Amino acid sequence: MKILVVSAHPDPASLTNALRGVAVEQLEADGHEVRVTDLYAAGWKSAVDRTDFPALPEAERLRVPAASSAAFTTGTLTDDVTAEQATLLWADALILAFPLWWFSMPAILKGWVDRVYAYGFAYGVGAHNETRWGDRYGEGTLAGKRAMLVVTAGGWETHYGPRGINGPIDDLLFPIQHGVLFYPGYAVLPPFVVYRADGLTESGFAATAEGLRARMRTLFSTAPIPFRRQNGGDYAIPSMALRPDLAPHLTGFAAHLDTAQPSTGGAP
Amino acid sequence: MKILVVSAHPDPASLTNALRGVAVEQLEADGHEVRVTDLYAAGWKSAVDRTDFPALPEAERLRVPAASSAAFTTGTLTDDVTAEQATLLWADALILAFPLWWFSMPAILKGWVDRVYAYGFAYGVGAHNETRWGDRYGEGTLAGKRAMLVVTAGGWETHYGPRGINGPIDDLLFPIQHGVLFYPGYAVLPPFVVYRADGLTESGFAATAEGLRARMRTLFSTAPIPFRRQNGGDYAIPSMALRPDLAPHLTGFAAHLDTAQPSTGGAP
Repeated sequence: MKILVVSAHPDPASLTNALRGVAVEQLEADGHEVRVTDLYAAGWKSAVDRTDFPALPEAERLRVPAASSAAFTTGTLTDDVTAEQATLLWADALILAFPLWWFSMPAILKGWVDRVYAYGFAYGVGAHNETRWGDRYGEGTLAGKRAMLVVTAGGWETHYGPRGINGPIDDLLFPIQHGVLFYPGYAVLPPFVVYRADGLTESGFAATAEGLRARMRTLFSTAPIPFRRQNGGDYAIPSMALRPDLAPHLTGFAAHLDTAQPSTGGAP
Repeated sequence: MKILVVSAHPDPASLTNALRGVAVEQLEADGHEVRVTDLYAAGWKSAVDRTDFPALPEAERLRVPAASSAAFTTGTLTDDVTAEQATLLWADALILAFPLWWFSMPAILKGWVDRVYAYGFAYGVGAHNETRWGDRYGEGTLAGKRAMLVVTAGGWETHYGPRGINGPIDDLLFPIQHGVLFYPGYAVLPPFVVYRADGLTESGFAATAEGLRARMRTLFSTAPIPFRRQNGGDYAIPSMALRPDLAPHLTGFAAHLDTAQPSTGGAP
């Protein structure tokens, strides 16, 4: 299979990049083909601005969705963005490796999402009408592929527990796992999270690396997080609210997990 | 009073920047002193890297917290960062105005957080020992000040409702409101969110602007979101888990709201 690993840490010797190395090594040892986008090494441009849309007339306002759609449709996005889009289409699986900075991705990785996820590519896909609100949340350009986060965090695991002060890690990652990965179609695997990253000892790293190797060996068999598909009948259109009879007592992120989905570990 | 407004949209004529203008105008009309950081106009650098720590020896690895701490302590952070820190200290209130891109901040604003929030300034503040895990979550450098988000979103309000497919807006904003604003001490006001931003009509804008003006008039009297203070006795140390007798049936972000806090609308 084919895998793209995108990493986002400025220090080549960082834990994030060491884990990226472990992942790539294991995947290649298992016969997979791997490509790496090291955003810092590539000098990735983070901010969406007019230079992303060279065909946009100077006199025209920059309305990002419209400009993005026009550029995607006419093939006038910048080369760095189109190359990443091609690699996303090439890959059967996507791995994002990053340190959790302020409970989210580093800016450079957010800028990868903001720029690569063009209108027509990652959103604005599929028919929008009275019975269908586009192909998203489990459908879309990247459906049939898998994605997974590899995250290093400074705090303790309990700080990210169900009642930990930072908020549960699954909820903190929901805007990424559900909003960035599931949205354009990825089946999202449970994340690989390393806590107390700054104090990791050599033996701690060895154990962590072994855990990550195990996750790489099962990349194509691990059961995805059972997010509910938008167009599977669970949501009312156009309100996009979960049907009242489903998980009737739940609100918040937890309501969007279909705990009745079979966890067969098969393909998405 | 003194207010800093930070905005993050590449189009000077965007709704985000129009709302920024409305906010500034109302605040100044009410006699406040306002400064604006327009991140795009300033050409703000998004990615944390070695150039942020000019005093870091070339041979030394870039460990971000350590480098950040050393640079903050020795006054060797870059000028753009120290200027923003000084303005944060100057301001009695902070307003962040941005479009919700992929359920979070645009990269350029995340880069403002990643770079301005140095170790010793926004984290790593206060004593760390067996009874106290630093000054954070309601205490810290920016305690006594207020903060508020002004957010534009493309989707419908119901999509961000308690059971809406995107997840509730309060939960999507928790990593920012709790993790970025409450963490270094801000009292966080309820956000001002504009839905269906792309389709806003002229009369819709007029009504929205009036709503924002009302929020600006009450910036210093609106009751903050009642996030629980870390060092108020609600959390066990060092696990930082919420005490079992508090909100015993709750997990997730909702557990960190102290609904028994008085909503007097007074100073934080």
